[in-house]
Amino acid sequence: MNQPLAISPVQQYLERLHAELQTVSAGEIASYIPELTRADPDWLGIALVTVDGHVYQVGDSRQPFTVQSISKAVSYGLALEDRGLDAVLSKVGVEPTGEAFNSISLEPDTGRPLNPMINAGAIATTGLIEHEDGVDPLQHLLEAFRRYCGRELSIDEAVYRSESETGHRNRAIAHLLYGHGILDRRPEEVVDLYFRQCSMLVTARDLALMGACLANGGVNPVSGIVALKSDWVHRVLSIMSTCGMYDFSGGWIFNVGMPAKSGVGGGIMAVLPGQFGLGVFSPRLDDKGNSVRGIRVCERVSRDFGLHMFNVAQGTSASVIRRGYDCGQAPSRRRRGDLQQRWLQQHGERIRVLELQGQLLFGSAESVALQVLGALDDAEALIVDLKRLIDMDQASAGLLGDLCAKAQASGSYLFFTECRHLYPFRRHLQKSVIASQTPDWLVFDETDRALEWCESALLLQAGLPEAEGQGPALESQYLFAGFDEAELDAVRAAGAVQRFAPDTLIVKVGEPADCLYAILEGEAEVWVRTEEWPGKGGRLRLTTLGPATVFGEIGLLSDQDRTANVTAQSAMVCLQVPFAALDDALCAKMLVNLAAHFAEMLKRNARLLQYLA
Amino acid sequence: MNQPLAISPVQQYLERLHAELQTVSAGEIASYIPELTRADPDWLGIALVTVDGHVYQVGDSRQPFTVQSISKAVSYGLALEDRGLDAVLSKVGVEPTGEAFNSISLEPDTGRPLNPMINAGAIATTGLIEHEDGVDPLQHLLEAFRRYCGRELSIDEAVYRSESETGHRNRAIAHLLYGHGILDRRPEEVVDLYFRQCSMLVTARDLALMGACLANGGVNPVSGIVALKSDWVHRVLSIMSTCGMYDFSGGWIFNVGMPAKSGVGGGIMAVLPGQFGLGVFSPRLDDKGNSVRGIRVCERVSRDFGLHMFNVAQGTSASVIRRGYDCGQAPSRRRRGDLQQRWLQQHGERIRVLELQGQLLFGSAESVALQVLGALDDAEALIVDLKRLIDMDQASAGLLGDLCAKAQASGSYLFFTECRHLYPFRRHLQKSVIASQTPDWLVFDETDRALEWCESALLLQAGLPEAEGQGPALESQYLFAGFDEAELDAVRAAGAVQRFAPDTLIVKVGEPADCLYAILEGEAEVWVRTEEWPGKGGRLRLTTLGPATVFGEIGLLSDQDRTANVTAQSAMVCLQVPFAALDDALCAKMLVNLAAHFAEMLKRNARLLQYLA
Repeated sequence: MNQPLAISPVQQYLERLHAELQTVSAGEIASYIPELTRADPDWLGIALVTVDGHVYQVGDSRQPFTVQSISKAVSYGLALEDRGLDAVLSKVGVEPTGEAFNSISLEPDTGRPLNPMINAGAIATTGLIEHEDGVDPLQHLLEAFRRYCGRELSIDEAVYRSESETGHRNRAIAHLLYGHGILDRRPEEVVDLYFRQCSMLVTARDLALMGACLANGGVNPVSGIVALKSDWVHRVLSIMSTCGMYDFSGGWIFNVGMPAKSGVGGGIMAVLPGQFGLGVFSPRLDDKGNSVRGIRVCERVSRDFGLHMFNVAQGTSASVIRRGYDCGQAPSRRRRGDLQQRWLQQHGERIRVLELQGQLLFGSAESVALQVLGALDDAEALIVDLKRLIDMDQASAGLLGDLCAKAQASGSYLFFTECRHLYPFRRHLQKSVIASQTPDWLVFDETDRALEWCESALLLQAGLPEAEGQGPALESQYLFAGFDEAELDAVRAAGAVQRFAPDTLIVKVGEPADCLYAILEGEAEVWVRTEEWPGKGGRLRLTTLGPATVFGEIGLLSDQDRTANVTAQSAMVCLQVPFAALDDALCAKMLVNLAAHFAEMLKRNARLLQYLA
Repeated sequence: MNQPLAISPVQQYLERLHAELQTVSAGEIASYIPELTRADPDWLGIALVTVDGHVYQVGDSRQPFTVQSISKAVSYGLALEDRGLDAVLSKVGVEPTGEAFNSISLEPDTGRPLNPMINAGAIATTGLIEHEDGVDPLQHLLEAFRRYCGRELSIDEAVYRSESETGHRNRAIAHLLYGHGILDRRPEEVVDLYFRQCSMLVTARDLALMGACLANGGVNPVSGIVALKSDWVHRVLSIMSTCGMYDFSGGWIFNVGMPAKSGVGGGIMAVLPGQFGLGVFSPRLDDKGNSVRGIRVCERVSRDFGLHMFNVAQGTSASVIRRGYDCGQAPSRRRRGDLQQRWLQQHGERIRVLELQGQLLFGSAESVALQVLGALDDAEALIVDLKRLIDMDQASAGLLGDLCAKAQASGSYLFFTECRHLYPFRRHLQKSVIASQTPDWLVFDETDRALEWCESALLLQAGLPEAEGQGPALESQYLFAGFDEAELDAVRAAGAVQRFAPDTLIVKVGEPADCLYAILEGEAEVWVRTEEWPGKGGRLRLTTLGPATVFGEIGLLSDQDRTANVTAQSAMVCLQVPFAALDDALCAKMLVNLAAHFAEMLKRNARLLQYLA
């Protein structure tokens, strides 16, 4: 949703804040180059972009201005991506200096600038941006900005030329750095790229979106494109929080609690990690070179909403565990014989399911790991359904992946299902599966399949495998409960034994429902196409039927057409009984069984609803 | 769960880490007083406590040592609680100095110490701790530590005496502060309390638990007691992150990313907000006075698990929205006449339900607010179920609470249900309800009640109120569908009209099921006690029945006893029909309707399961 509703409370708030701060007129426009003095001192633009990609803006949020030092956050991230941590740290430190942005703070022996936010450090950083396969560094940098802002940025040529003509101090810094070996490229090249970098034109909306990328683990929340690989985001935010506002940052972190970067063009970009990016534009600066109203906006947003980088959600298990239940409460969709079904109801707590949701970090993963170990202590199988888990960091993937080996060692089964979307975790799982030599057929993507397998395994253990063969099967069908031998013979006589090859479509939606099938051997899948039912694309499996179950019997009740398809999953043997061939007495008896069976299923479903809802 | 399982992955990790770092022998034990030199330089204890209250520890985690400067984090929080922000800020600043812990860094004009972590600042802070109603400050401080550590702490008298006898610099500082008016209590008193504060005996486990309190919004995760009011936690963490490790903290935040506080007794307390507290004890210190192995532990935990205060969960709507559905997919448990039920199935998308889970912060609340506004744009009613929402911060309470007024203005209904446990939000809601003059009966605690009210309101609007009166009612009962006039008369003749006063128990669990009731007027509630069903304590409402519905008819199928209770909710008029009085033909017809009705309900429940699961 890219357009805010007119009555969104956040939009209303920003409009009120804008109106209030419009009256603040402290500070002076930057004047070290004449181009900057052309700014309208009354300009005030505020924008906020959330990690959900919602964009709010007010006032002069679309007014372009030169990005200046705010670009240092982007170039630093890019240098880390291009060169790696050690290479960058060897050229630039990470300590705040408390001095002005144009200070020359170099370590006495190495000449290393103290941090990437002062000019010396920024020049060193810009000197690290790589030539990628013939792409010159300027294009490389512009491409990075494009990922952050979702659009091509242009350079204010007048400002660039002015910076270049008057930037002697910066040239001096570049030469000093070159002399110390901090720059390995020619100083003129680097400082020229640096001048262009500072002269890029942005808006407050751009800054908010850039901040939102950093708030969102490096991913642009509007476009979904990776602006900065997630490994580097916390590095950039750390620098911004300690060195971004040209003081020691104690007060900034204490009062505002949002990593931020300011620029003498009048912009401020602030980040509330995990929540939003905030962009402000107001050309009047304080004596440190920070936008006066920009700082006020950050302070007000932090105060009015009680926001702070240390006010985070508690990663307790309660926030990631969506639901837990066992097979007795919510069995698989496989329909089984009465005997099996009743046994599972009684012993079902030996198979458990845990559904996770949201995001897993170390803290919550530790909790989940403990729950898993606890469950494996007294259940035979645990299925962890990750369908609603959005993300899992490396620590969590490791913690959970290692559990599979522990489960095997203790003789229990542990399945992780519905996790196609969690790539790092899948790699962990694969390693675990290979290491423990888990057979292929023991890896399930769907929770229901895993549940079904566990049920069958347990039933086998209990000496209650699916019934097979022709004789006993009819008696164990619910539909013929209470039938004596003569009545069963009458049913057999009314019908005919049919054999179906695997994948045969036995019953098709829309056909007249004129007979029932009693399964003697094999399995069938009952399914529909998704237009009728919600669910994944294509074919939705409603249930699987095995021996000692019937299908198609609802046709006894009325003249309706078939409402689902039935396909043979394996070679099948069925008794097909046309309704027309049954006499009234048999039908009446079946009807009573039908109704009782549905009442029982309703009762069970109601219980299931209690557990699931 | 206070005891970690032997095979917990976190416990295993800490044990391996402990074994690795045992070999590190850099650093020197503190020796400025002889008592500290008695420490065994090989001691190494590591402990970790999560916000779920799980405790892990290894090595010398139970070895007591003096807390020294780590106590400054606790006393600062206490001073904030006692005196408020402005009073504390007027006496102590918040800027790091980069100097040693015993530096005297005072602002030239005011004499204000630069931050509460250097001795001068800590002394000023300790001087702010209040005498509460005759409780002397030492007891007040000990009580605070008790809330953090879950136990009474004792003071190492030998260390205290030594500190007191040799602490001339600290006395000098206290006098300087008194001269500047930073202390308003006698310097000797304050510095004596300060010496005792530093001499408190703690263990690594205590430090981990203290850290976990700060990670958990100020609440001790093991005891559930509030150690520090949540308003102050981010202030303490801010100071720890910028001033806690006796340097400019740039490198600490960049590399480790956990607010931390060290002490010359050899302890370090680190916090990963929202996740855990970490405590380390190892007496050998580096030249800045920080425990060498303590720093290594923090660096390793951060690196090995990819942990950092800026690696937070993204507060997207997907992590807080558990489920969304509408009345057509999942109607209320009120059973209605066929006509009403079918109409609701068709038009049910005009009543929506949104279930939230986890924790709501500004970012996710903004998303939810947009969803609410969007839903109110095209639905008549929205019910937001907060049953599984653990917590909501002030910003979120404000954002959501304000939506009620907007809903009213747009002519829609907005309900927040199941939120008894969210106190600040309830206050917002109450204000909103009063301001908008919402009548009492429009405030629902249970989602199902709100849903039921919305359905009834919609049905009324559509000209389909509950059927009333005696004549038409039988025809509209599903059980008598397809009955001609003669058959309906036969049913009426077989039964007797009964009138029930409100609260009459009409059907009781366990009684023989020998008749059915067709409701002609009034409402009945079907309920059970919780031993049979999961749910809240006491009585669980299964469904509410109105006119044109039946109950007790399942007894037609078998000789079972009643499985639920039925109580009249209002004055009722029912047709009570004993099964014995019905002839076989009528029974057979009813049976077919019964089975078809159950099949239909099953189908609907299956659809419901698809949406709910």
